[in-house]
Amino acid sequence: MAYQNSPYGGYGGPGGFSSGMAQAGLPPGADPQLWSWFSAVDTDRSGAISAIELERALINGDWTPFDLDTVKLLMGMFDVDRSGTIGFNEFCGLWKYIKDWQNVFRYFDRDRSGTIDRNELRDALSRFGYNLSPPLIKLIQVKYASNVASNYGPALGITFDRFVRACVVIKQLSGAFQNLDTDNDGWVQISYDQFMQTVLSLP
Amino acid sequence: MAYQNSPYGGYGGPGGFSSGMAQAGLPPGADPQLWSWFSAVDTDRSGAISAIELERALINGDWTPFDLDTVKLLMGMFDVDRSGTIGFNEFCGLWKYIKDWQNVFRYFDRDRSGTIDRNELRDALSRFGYNLSPPLIKLIQVKYASNVASNYGPALGITFDRFVRACVVIKQLSGAFQNLDTDNDGWVQISYDQFMQTVLSLP
Ligand SMILES: [Ca+2]
Ligand SMILES: [Ca+2]
Ligand SMILES: [Ca+2]
Ligand SMILES: [Ca+2]
Repeated sequence: MAYQNSPYGGYGGPGGFSSGMAQAGLPPGADPQLWSWFSAVDTDRSGAISAIELERALINGDWTPFDLDTVKLLMGMFDVDRSGTIGFNEFCGLWKYIKDWQNVFRYFDRDRSGTIDRNELRDALSRFGYNLSPPLIKLIQVKYASNVASNYGPALGITFDRFVRACVVIKQLSGAFQNLDTDNDGWVQISYDQFMQTVLSLP
Repeated sequence: MAYQNSPYGGYGGPGGFSSGMAQAGLPPGADPQLWSWFSAVDTDRSGAISAIELERALINGDWTPFDLDTVKLLMGMFDVDRSGTIGFNEFCGLWKYIKDWQNVFRYFDRDRSGTIDRNELRDALSRFGYNLSPPLIKLIQVKYASNVASNYGPALGITFDRFVRACVVIKQLSGAFQNLDTDNDGWVQISYDQFMQTVLSLP
């Protein structure tokens, strides 16, 4: 745990891995930088990253830990062999995914506040091809905001972890709808079981 | 913050408010016990509970804090006047709601493990009137589990906070579906906007 060494450092950054540097047993052909990050996250030196190690390593730009649902989303995506842990090859995929999202987050966090507000969210979703109605954008903002609405205090903003999760949810939901909407008229017929299954498969 | 004073004490309980005792300025007619809990959670003595104070006060049986989405769900339900804080009258509603869920949780946590496993979840949902298919129960267990699946370590279990949220989600989703299913045949026609709105309104 070496927050001060984070390359995404300081308040206002997108977030990512918090750990510092470490170097040992570099596998042949492995990127030394990536290996050093992997080793730093693998704190018990087991050769693989457990969910708990991953949870400890992932922090937002405001140094809050990633929420559990986002950690579970990442484990589900990158624990390809379903071993329950993230090996080095799996880690390379996870690392790239987070780097890519960091760039997206930095791009849309126009005011560099470290969170995504409603206008930034609308711009991001519209750039991804989702032209959602203002009430929907508002719902997404409220649902994924990393704080609770109040009459005072900071406005509703979405931290990195929840922004990634929101975008994955919108993508997965829209994809599921499109798959059902075979005649492409914007309406689907769906059974209770399909409906529940679609929603409960979301991260 | 006085975990040791919690009446739901110790590992294996359902969870609830963590705070200890405090007593001052009891309003006329107020339940002294409830007022003392309210005052203990209102740590800055502002006369109302902020989201942050609520977040600090709510813990699970394993002493993990409630997840943000559950805190937001509770604020959304009990901040009736939309002031952004929980006043004493609002607190009485919140308190009763949590007490009721604690009893539900204790009842269905048959093995007193402090978490709800798949069989306990199936029994609870079935008792609530939801006879969901085994794949759906499995999805709910995986989605709301408070840990990540692995080949070793403890089995997937749902802590109090996420159990409440899961049950509210199932209820809200099933209700939304039934409202759309006017001819009651288990199928609905739904537009993309309605679909997104239904899902993004879930806690
Ligand atoms: Ca693996
Ligand atoms: Ca911003
Ligand atoms: Ca209020
Ligand atoms: Ca149990």
